[in-house]
Amino acid sequence: MQHSIRNVLILPILLVSGSLLANEPIQAIPSNSETNPALAELGKKLFFDPRLSKSGFISCNSCHNLSMGGTDNLKTSIGHHWQQGPINSPTVLNSTFNIAQFWDGRAKDLKEQAGGPIENPKEMASNHKLASKIIASIPAYREEFKQVFKSDTVNIDKITTAIAEFEKTLITPNSRFDQWLLGNKEAITAKEKSGYELFKTSGCIACHSGVAVGGNSYQKMGTIKPYITENKASGRFAVTGKESDKFVFKVPTLRNIELTYPYFHDGEASSLTEAVNTMAKIQLAKEFTKEETSEIVAFLKTLTGDQPDFKMPILPPSHESTPKPEPFDK
Amino acid sequence: MQHSIRNVLILPILLVSGSLLANEPIQAIPSNSETNPALAELGKKLFFDPRLSKSGFISCNSCHNLSMGGTDNLKTSIGHHWQQGPINSPTVLNSTFNIAQFWDGRAKDLKEQAGGPIENPKEMASNHKLASKIIASIPAYREEFKQVFKSDTVNIDKITTAIAEFEKTLITPNSRFDQWLLGNKEAITAKEKSGYELFKTSGCIACHSGVAVGGNSYQKMGTIKPYITENKASGRFAVTGKESDKFVFKVPTLRNIELTYPYFHDGEASSLTEAVNTMAKIQLAKEFTKEETSEIVAFLKTLTGDQPDFKMPILPPSHESTPKPEPFDK
Repeated sequence: MQHSIRNVLILPILLVSGSLLANEPIQAIPSNSETNPALAELGKKLFFDPRLSKSGFISCNSCHNLSMGGTDNLKTSIGHHWQQGPINSPTVLNSTFNIAQFWDGRAKDLKEQAGGPIENPKEMASNHKLASKIIASIPAYREEFKQVFKSDTVNIDKITTAIAEFEKTLITPNSRFDQWLLGNKEAITAKEKSGYELFKTSGCIACHSGVAVGGNSYQKMGTIKPYITENKASGRFAVTGKESDKFVFKVPTLRNIELTYPYFHDGEASSLTEAVNTMAKIQLAKEFTKEETSEIVAFLKTLTGDQPDFKMPILPPSHESTPKPEPFDK
Repeated sequence: MQHSIRNVLILPILLVSGSLLANEPIQAIPSNSETNPALAELGKKLFFDPRLSKSGFISCNSCHNLSMGGTDNLKTSIGHHWQQGPINSPTVLNSTFNIAQFWDGRAKDLKEQAGGPIENPKEMASNHKLASKIIASIPAYREEFKQVFKSDTVNIDKITTAIAEFEKTLITPNSRFDQWLLGNKEAITAKEKSGYELFKTSGCIACHSGVAVGGNSYQKMGTIKPYITENKASGRFAVTGKESDKFVFKVPTLRNIELTYPYFHDGEASSLTEAVNTMAKIQLAKEFTKEETSEIVAFLKTLTGDQPDFKMPILPPSHESTPKPEPFDK
């Protein structure tokens, strides 16, 4: 009885505090995504399947490693024949909240993105026809496609639909910052709270806002001072051809930023301290004190949410008719 | 009450049948291994951690992929800078039952084996000192070492002890053949049973016996007819220097053989049909009919057991002091 009374007293307080906090420019991640479980399960297998690459060695998970924040933690990725990738692998975690995919936003959604690396000669170096033929040759996959799509025909459209559905499940709720947003005042420390205030008052929040704390706009890298890099990526310019889009990139999410080092499209910032100081200088014409940077970094580390929590998938074996991987052929 | 009576009636039958079948030259895998769970859990993280390689890209799981029968399903593996490995990656599944590790048995146990690839310049291309320094620099690892080893000192001895402990858990009980061995007569078909009889009467069983259906002896590849291959591996000769040990290799386990293609130390047999026919010819001076080969292959496929069943590990993030991966430096 006392229990019920306590609930009655506490609930309205949480609701009031929740509704006040809902006015924050960052929103908590929903605790689950609306996805088709069977389709996502098939997509999980495909995400981990290196047979989508020419070598039979590289899977989506190679560069978007779900054990490591959905990234490879390298400046730029390793592709087919150890070719050096042109840009830092963005995290696949919470990527469903992005305005578009890739640093330059050239893919409109996760499904379109998933097809890219498979046929990129510097990445997985296969092609959509071969990848589909390989998957179609594997009896257990064909059976699973039949159950999920009501037809056992395998094509790149279905493959990327399934991978995208799995990726939609890769959201990371329950970070300490989200707990705080949802009303638990104890979830973050005074220092972390100061860091968040500084993050807002300094202007970081202008671009890093919303559910994913970024991912929802394109911005120029170096609005105040030019960003000096040897990296050749030209950003949105590659998509739109507009001079004004040179060095304009999708703002990355700051969710799980503690795990997704190194930072920036060129991966040149190896620590959060370095990344925060560079951003302040080139985007905000600011120079933080050591203490201020430390507070912001402390805040950023509260954005680490629950990491993917699932059984490692077991992949169905190839059939005698499955085209063989060609790891050492050019 | 009826339930208890039924148990009383059935149990002795199972025991009798079990004890009869215990005389088979192949034994069922025990359903669990005696391991230290906390140590194995640490080992699982290390098994999946690419920071043990110079590039930060290759982990134990890259070539002993637990989603794919504990192998990479390639003829020979891909190492640092895409170097071609000299030999087919043996499965890590049930490797605890092996007489020794590697095809030539040069490592006496799993712990000794685990240290090899880390410092092999063609494989992970790191060294024991650097690998230990990297792991020691990661606060969450140090904490876990402290809990497991009662001291947070990290060294290669502890790293390989943990990896080996995890690998000891990688046993695959409950195959249909094991169910049959344990008394369930319905677990395999008449054709599969015929295949097993043929496997015994033809002499395959002479080398492929015991709990792991192999792994317990060294034998010459090509006892009757020489095995023709471009592969340079000389087998046990590399360890003992004895002329008689040339082309003598550890007999591989046939457990999960359906998943661990391609076959032989050079990976040149792409299908079970091919592998069985070649073995018959060069080891037994036999030529099986198409039907006989098909029966043996059917039997071999009953040896697929329960695959690893665990949550994908989440790796602790590097610290600012963690030595950086060097994927593109020679």
